[in-house]
Amino acid sequence: MDVVVIGAGATGLKAASRAKRRNPDINVTVVEAGKFISVSRCGLPYYIGGFINEVNDLRKTTYGAIRDERFFKELRDIDILTLTRAIEIDRSKKVVKIEKSDGFEDELNYDYLVISTGAKPIKPKIDTEGVFTLYDPEDAEKILDYWEEYEPDKAVVIGSGLVELETCEALTNLGLEVTLIESANHIAPAILDEEMARLLEIHLKEKGVNVVTSATVSKISTKNGRVSSVFAGKEFPADIVITSVEVKPNVELAKKAGLKIGETGAIFVNEYLQTSDESIYAGGDCVENVNLITGKRVYTPLGDIANKHGRVIGDNITGGKEKFPGVIGSVIAKVFDFTIAKTGLSEKEARENGFDVITALAPSPDREPYYPRMNNIRLKIVVDKKTNKIIGAQAVGLGVIDKRIDVLATAIQAGLTIDTIANLDLAYAPPYSASLDNVIVAANVARNKRDGLFETVKSSELKEMIDRDDVLILDVRNKDEFEKGLKIEAKNVVNIPLIELRKKLNELPKDKTIVVVCPLGARSYEAYRILKGNGFKKVKALEGGLAFWV
Amino acid sequence: MDVVVIGAGATGLKAASRAKRRNPDINVTVVEAGKFISVSRCGLPYYIGGFINEVNDLRKTTYGAIRDERFFKELRDIDILTLTRAIEIDRSKKVVKIEKSDGFEDELNYDYLVISTGAKPIKPKIDTEGVFTLYDPEDAEKILDYWEEYEPDKAVVIGSGLVELETCEALTNLGLEVTLIESANHIAPAILDEEMARLLEIHLKEKGVNVVTSATVSKISTKNGRVSSVFAGKEFPADIVITSVEVKPNVELAKKAGLKIGETGAIFVNEYLQTSDESIYAGGDCVENVNLITGKRVYTPLGDIANKHGRVIGDNITGGKEKFPGVIGSVIAKVFDFTIAKTGLSEKEARENGFDVITALAPSPDREPYYPRMNNIRLKIVVDKKTNKIIGAQAVGLGVIDKRIDVLATAIQAGLTIDTIANLDLAYAPPYSASLDNVIVAANVARNKRDGLFETVKSSELKEMIDRDDVLILDVRNKDEFEKGLKIEAKNVVNIPLIELRKKLNELPKDKTIVVVCPLGARSYEAYRILKGNGFKKVKALEGGLAFWV
Repeated sequence: MDVVVIGAGATGLKAASRAKRRNPDINVTVVEAGKFISVSRCGLPYYIGGFINEVNDLRKTTYGAIRDERFFKELRDIDILTLTRAIEIDRSKKVVKIEKSDGFEDELNYDYLVISTGAKPIKPKIDTEGVFTLYDPEDAEKILDYWEEYEPDKAVVIGSGLVELETCEALTNLGLEVTLIESANHIAPAILDEEMARLLEIHLKEKGVNVVTSATVSKISTKNGRVSSVFAGKEFPADIVITSVEVKPNVELAKKAGLKIGETGAIFVNEYLQTSDESIYAGGDCVENVNLITGKRVYTPLGDIANKHGRVIGDNITGGKEKFPGVIGSVIAKVFDFTIAKTGLSEKEARENGFDVITALAPSPDREPYYPRMNNIRLKIVVDKKTNKIIGAQAVGLGVIDKRIDVLATAIQAGLTIDTIANLDLAYAPPYSASLDNVIVAANVARNKRDGLFETVKSSELKEMIDRDDVLILDVRNKDEFEKGLKIEAKNVVNIPLIELRKKLNELPKDKTIVVVCPLGARSYEAYRILKGNGFKKVKALEGGLAFWV
Repeated sequence: MDVVVIGAGATGLKAASRAKRRNPDINVTVVEAGKFISVSRCGLPYYIGGFINEVNDLRKTTYGAIRDERFFKELRDIDILTLTRAIEIDRSKKVVKIEKSDGFEDELNYDYLVISTGAKPIKPKIDTEGVFTLYDPEDAEKILDYWEEYEPDKAVVIGSGLVELETCEALTNLGLEVTLIESANHIAPAILDEEMARLLEIHLKEKGVNVVTSATVSKISTKNGRVSSVFAGKEFPADIVITSVEVKPNVELAKKAGLKIGETGAIFVNEYLQTSDESIYAGGDCVENVNLITGKRVYTPLGDIANKHGRVIGDNITGGKEKFPGVIGSVIAKVFDFTIAKTGLSEKEARENGFDVITALAPSPDREPYYPRMNNIRLKIVVDKKTNKIIGAQAVGLGVIDKRIDVLATAIQAGLTIDTIANLDLAYAPPYSASLDNVIVAANVARNKRDGLFETVKSSELKEMIDRDDVLILDVRNKDEFEKGLKIEAKNVVNIPLIELRKKLNELPKDKTIVVVCPLGARSYEAYRILKGNGFKKVKALEGGLAFWV
């Protein structure tokens, strides 16, 4: 049996390897247009930032072997033809026409064909020296060569997806002064809700990055043939520019062969990752996935998904019947000292998809407060009001965020409600969590809101109320926290430490709307319940506390 | 409405606080026999080890307030009577008789009663100075006083539960030479399967702890009125001894009141945490829980569960109808540089409960191998053969273990199969995981075993085969790894680096059983498939590789 794989990325190589391990008698040939195979593109920003010494480190096994053509041949008996393009699929004859870099053409017969042609970066037309994209290893090499040759001081990064955010850190590590320009009204618009993105923006600024939002780049100027500035509403000096890349599925070959293309523009596959031709499978960055929450077809080109696709395809072309269920859109990145992560739908996406939602902003400690190196994690969850199921979560900041996001990713895929999450039996000890883990605290905040125990305003809403005569801001922090800490500048502010509140209730007006504020929301909740229990009708709390005051 | 709470631990105080927040009009009185309230006992080993400065740190809120009687009165309008014993419950009159430390007796009326009397440590009769238990804050103070006064050099710790293991680290931090004595044939017998416990044993020894298993303490000797040695098969010098404590539910009062006691000896409660008297709720360390995997009633006195119980009770005594579903037995501890953790059933427990299981030992990287500070996590999962559901997981060692255990704890409670886990959409980026997270790798190893792609032996089984003439150990590490690394001393060992295996197949005998070994099991799997694909019939692989060679 002959298997041909087009594209030697994560999906193609995984499918080839898995198939050969399951059935050693098949012949597997992988055709790759590029020069390098199996480089982890996700590692490129770390390579630029100096965390990783060589590009080859990005394609090593756990035991240090470089996953090159020889590796696949000697270890797995897989033939890999690099610098070889697949130019046509003849489905009736089950033949792939290929062309080598020297122009030599040939044909490969297949019983099963795997299309793993990946994505195609739509790189902007760049004729200016010093302007780069960062998509593939070649880009990374060019950026580092330019940096060594011209020793740039000022960098402009255009766009704020995960790669661009990671690039801000990488370039700062290289000693550059970085300006980040985003056309949306907040950074990371495809990932984070605005209130979460603002937290990240503050951190970027603390790290010296000049963050510019709501600004569209209209011109890139040069001096002596090299880039000198970027114009986006105003002029930003730039010795080097990294611009984001639109990523499109690479479907030309599939389209030409008459395979069904989905509504997202990527190759349509069924749950077995089979295309509209039952002898042809496809996976990775060239296919579309099903979003398990919305049921919609989505385009999610991510390395971990490509890997899982490869295994499923490897099984199915050797007699298996494996399904790939779909995705929920989990992403994470390290940006300076912060982790930013998201799973499921953002609030914005949830509303756009017609969900009526409860959200909860719940900062809480990632380990017992008495244990060293505790950080408060700023977690937001999105809950479907109709089913009480969690459908999204985001976190931004210090602390062990990845654990909480992965637990919630699992909960979302399992369809758990906030009531179930509130009683999850997670592993507790003081170095690893508080006795109620952050995900449990967040579920409980959402339940309290659902059950009418807690009415909140977000910081953006409070900002609009701040100058009203009929609004009183009640700050329940201790005296010294109030005096030394973050201040809300508002018309009417009063500080009554929480512990004194019951004794000083008569100092508060019953006719005004009282908005309670505190550092993390927990004390505001206590104060809210005390006020409500004592006949105050118009009470709100700043959701998530000053940790979300942005 | 009057609510009386007996016991001011996590459950009692949480129930009282939650109830008052939901309904400010009720009167809540908490009766506590001891002097201190709301101290986190889980933090005591860190206090002894010097991580935490004062016992009071163990009862602070996130904002530094000490959760004492005044705190609960002023903030939540809850009356707490310390040094006050509840001596009788008169259910017909709905009255609790109490006795203060000065002998003064009184009665408290209740509409709802909450029993949160916690656990009772069965401390061994100790009449020897220098022998301690470590159960409550008073114990911790006594140990530290003794340490300061007599400057002991040698410590013996008897028993190896979580507290004892943490105590080994704490005492080592204080500069003591520690011997750990366990009567079972391996340490942590209530938590870990033997192969996992052996990994921890090696680490304890590396840290200077003298680990003694299969040894029962028969005598404690003194010199000048203070402890001088412990006899357990042989004599161990000891200037201080910490001995484990059997923990029993404190049910006397409930029993005397005629409330139903469950099969475990703890108070029986329904899913609403209601006792056999509908006006009386109970939770925390004095009640039994339902194990969600076996359906059996179990006794699991843990701080995080006590906390969750408190919230459910607080809801239900104020008109709510909340359920506490049950537990799966998730535990975790930091022991020197290692994390040890378990969720669900161990292999031993699963077999004892009648499950036919597949297990997988799967060491794999906790982040991309090219990213700094990568560690291989040694993870074991236990899968129910009949349903393919995961029912248990354990991990021991370096690396970010807590995340993987909590994800699997969530998966167990959601009833996920290994097939679903293998395609979980978790958040991937190089600093946080490899492209296939450890839980996915483990699920895939289990699936490979289930599907007959991989037959393994454990290190204990291999040890029994090692001297047989008909067994050949094939070590597929690279030459230098083989020469410099861990060695298996066996009759027939041959080293063929994996990459050369296909070329050297003719050097291998077809009549012998070949056991393939490598560092982590991944290369053995490749080698296994190559050998099987080339007509070798009797092939096995060392499961989990040399990472599990103990």
